[in-house]
Amino acid sequence: MDAALRYAQANRDRFLTELKEFLSLPSVSTQEEHRPDIERTAAWLRDKLLAAGFPKAEVMPTAGHPIVYGEWPAAEPDRPTILIYGHYDVQPPEPLEEWHTPPFEPTVIGDDLFARGAADDKGQLYIHIKALESLQATDTPLPVNVKCIFEGEEESGSESLTPFIHDHADLLAADVAVISDTHILGPDTPSIVYGLRGLTYLEVEVVGPDHDLHSGTYGGAVLNPINALCRMIARLQDEDGHIAIPGFYDSVRPLTEEEREELARVPFDREAWLHEAGVTTDWGEPEYTIVERTSARPTLDVNGIWGGYIRPGAKTVLPSKAHAKISMRLVPDQRPEEIARLTEEYLTAIAPPAVRVTVHALHGGDGIVLDRHSPALEAASRAYEMAFGKRPVFTREGGSIPVVATFKRVLGIDSVLMGFGLPDDRIHAPNEKFHLPNFYRGIETVLYFLDFYGGTHK
Amino acid sequence: MDAALRYAQANRDRFLTELKEFLSLPSVSTQEEHRPDIERTAAWLRDKLLAAGFPKAEVMPTAGHPIVYGEWPAAEPDRPTILIYGHYDVQPPEPLEEWHTPPFEPTVIGDDLFARGAADDKGQLYIHIKALESLQATDTPLPVNVKCIFEGEEESGSESLTPFIHDHADLLAADVAVISDTHILGPDTPSIVYGLRGLTYLEVEVVGPDHDLHSGTYGGAVLNPINALCRMIARLQDEDGHIAIPGFYDSVRPLTEEEREELARVPFDREAWLHEAGVTTDWGEPEYTIVERTSARPTLDVNGIWGGYIRPGAKTVLPSKAHAKISMRLVPDQRPEEIARLTEEYLTAIAPPAVRVTVHALHGGDGIVLDRHSPALEAASRAYEMAFGKRPVFTREGGSIPVVATFKRVLGIDSVLMGFGLPDDRIHAPNEKFHLPNFYRGIETVLYFLDFYGGTHK
Repeated sequence: MDAALRYAQANRDRFLTELKEFLSLPSVSTQEEHRPDIERTAAWLRDKLLAAGFPKAEVMPTAGHPIVYGEWPAAEPDRPTILIYGHYDVQPPEPLEEWHTPPFEPTVIGDDLFARGAADDKGQLYIHIKALESLQATDTPLPVNVKCIFEGEEESGSESLTPFIHDHADLLAADVAVISDTHILGPDTPSIVYGLRGLTYLEVEVVGPDHDLHSGTYGGAVLNPINALCRMIARLQDEDGHIAIPGFYDSVRPLTEEEREELARVPFDREAWLHEAGVTTDWGEPEYTIVERTSARPTLDVNGIWGGYIRPGAKTVLPSKAHAKISMRLVPDQRPEEIARLTEEYLTAIAPPAVRVTVHALHGGDGIVLDRHSPALEAASRAYEMAFGKRPVFTREGGSIPVVATFKRVLGIDSVLMGFGLPDDRIHAPNEKFHLPNFYRGIETVLYFLDFYGGTHK
Repeated sequence: MDAALRYAQANRDRFLTELKEFLSLPSVSTQEEHRPDIERTAAWLRDKLLAAGFPKAEVMPTAGHPIVYGEWPAAEPDRPTILIYGHYDVQPPEPLEEWHTPPFEPTVIGDDLFARGAADDKGQLYIHIKALESLQATDTPLPVNVKCIFEGEEESGSESLTPFIHDHADLLAADVAVISDTHILGPDTPSIVYGLRGLTYLEVEVVGPDHDLHSGTYGGAVLNPINALCRMIARLQDEDGHIAIPGFYDSVRPLTEEEREELARVPFDREAWLHEAGVTTDWGEPEYTIVERTSARPTLDVNGIWGGYIRPGAKTVLPSKAHAKISMRLVPDQRPEEIARLTEEYLTAIAPPAVRVTVHALHGGDGIVLDRHSPALEAASRAYEMAFGKRPVFTREGGSIPVVATFKRVLGIDSVLMGFGLPDDRIHAPNEKFHLPNFYRGIETVLYFLDFYGGTHK
């Protein structure tokens, strides 16, 4: 293992060059014009698996974007099997004008690599490939059986992934999944996420008149669908963020006193957090801490809204339609389908008779809380301690990784969330970056993890 | 005058062909890329004035889009002077996908001519030019002094017009202004608008975090500016449309019982109105009739709203900014600047501390009520009766024509609003059209008006 660690250190520059090549491919999954880029990225990734030493790696088609699958058996029989999951697609880069460097021209500034997808998830995914290459290049015996599944639709709802896992349950059989798509608390504060929020994502359309009208001629006697939509959105929450949808909190598993005490031990610097978020004050349910609100409490955000005339200048239109994209972060045991149904019922009930509302569920995922004392989480905890010199903190995270719930449901396995991002990586926003020391330490952490988990298990 | 009327009838096909040429010029004033089209349209219009017999016509530059000015003295001295106002710019055609025929390829279907600007205002403006040509071509003595002012910024706030009128008050001196930019009640129900609503148009920006955030990571502890904007918009009105801005109604001149009785005499078919508006039910202040709500009461509409991710698919962004364009229709004696100030104060007061709101006034105009018994309005009334065979109804209209207030303030003259549009012309919306029988009758009405007003005045 020492040889592999030394190899990883000696090859840092080349690893970075390869990662920049990976990041320069604009694999935006939600934008149809990037479909050829998605295909190119999948092929590139397969080639890198083969180059790293994977005896088997292929691009497997789905109804949507392809899945890159790889397999590599352990050196000795009877070793446990890990299933490494990642996603090679990225969020749209818009708004482009707010990037200081072009999103698909990866640029190193200081210790950071700036590019769309740098932290979410290409940089974190690539850590695993380079760790495995380091074993192969130094003839270190592979301590576990490795399977890889890298999807291209994580940012667009992973619609093809669940059917794929169902259809290939035998192929994907494993003892545990390993996912690097979360962040640690700081460059020197390693942490392991044991809880994730779920997600319900809805698109709402409000239709008033069947065509656009002149607001001077009809204003005052025809209900404006934008005004109506705003009133409806205002009624989804109170001013402190408590959600007003009847039944919304019924299935929320309350935080225990023990959990609240643990979450209170998460190092948290309010000033630093405000700075990272770019706000002057926090907001939200006053009876919960910021850490609890962003990780262990359900929330509601309008992710997009549009209607009427939105170009420069003034147009006095009373538009026919208004739209919003609304998502809710869920906690155990809220079910996305149930929350979508409750939300649709509520929006329909509060819509004024003069407009027509339709609600379309775009995608969702269950929230999850993992067992912190499983062999894989113990191995991961020791691995972080070796690489970072500190025992990791166990945290819950606000984002959603629906595949964690899918792996549990379909394959019957837990996931270890070995994140290497940082809270200020600006994922999903302009100027996304990845902290390069985390990239290199991540490769070391994964090498330790493979060693510990392969030795302790079975 | 009979010769001129016969000439106008005999030349209908050619007049229509010319109007189609006028409408095929995409003179969208709010979109910078159409600036060359604006220039071309102004030059085209000047040429048509000269061709119609105007001894003087020119394109006059302003800080914004040019003004086309023409002058034609009466055949005999001591005749009154009319100032014909119109605008050659048009609303943006968006949303393009909802047009059944291309907006800048004028298409006749049945009695209607479909094109952006057909009724608002190119078709109505062109009526005057063709009436004057009919006099010149038949050697009919011009019964009044005519001045024309056609602007290219009406749909973008007429920013250059007021300074132009100030700077050229002597050139524009007249006894009355004549404006054809309104509608009559029906093809066989002529009407004259004697009251117009004013306008305050604002753009509102709400800023939350200083960059876009991931809604999973920050949702629940950072106030989302879209949610905040929706709550603020919801608090601008109650559910019946009463405006909640403190002081908003303080300067409203109440409707007198006599006015309410007159407005109740306006022929109004609720079912036909619902059909024209494309709605299943009306909405608004229950203590006022639909006619009153759309013409004599102040209103508030969100004309556009945008923020966050608005392309197809799902993006879990907690955006930095949200925007809305909000306009209010005003009635005498509400002042646009005062209402803009009250609205800004209110929005600032109700904005949660976690966001920053800025309000930018785009443009405004005073509401107005004209003297129904002035010589010009009397002449117009007789002219409609001759051309349409029915005495016109006096009405108030919901839209704004800020130039009416400007003419009063700067030149000291009233305006006669000789509209030839129809309520279902879909101005400002896809599939705008102009009813061709109104185009031809409009030319006749203007010929009678010139005759009556020239004969009765001075």
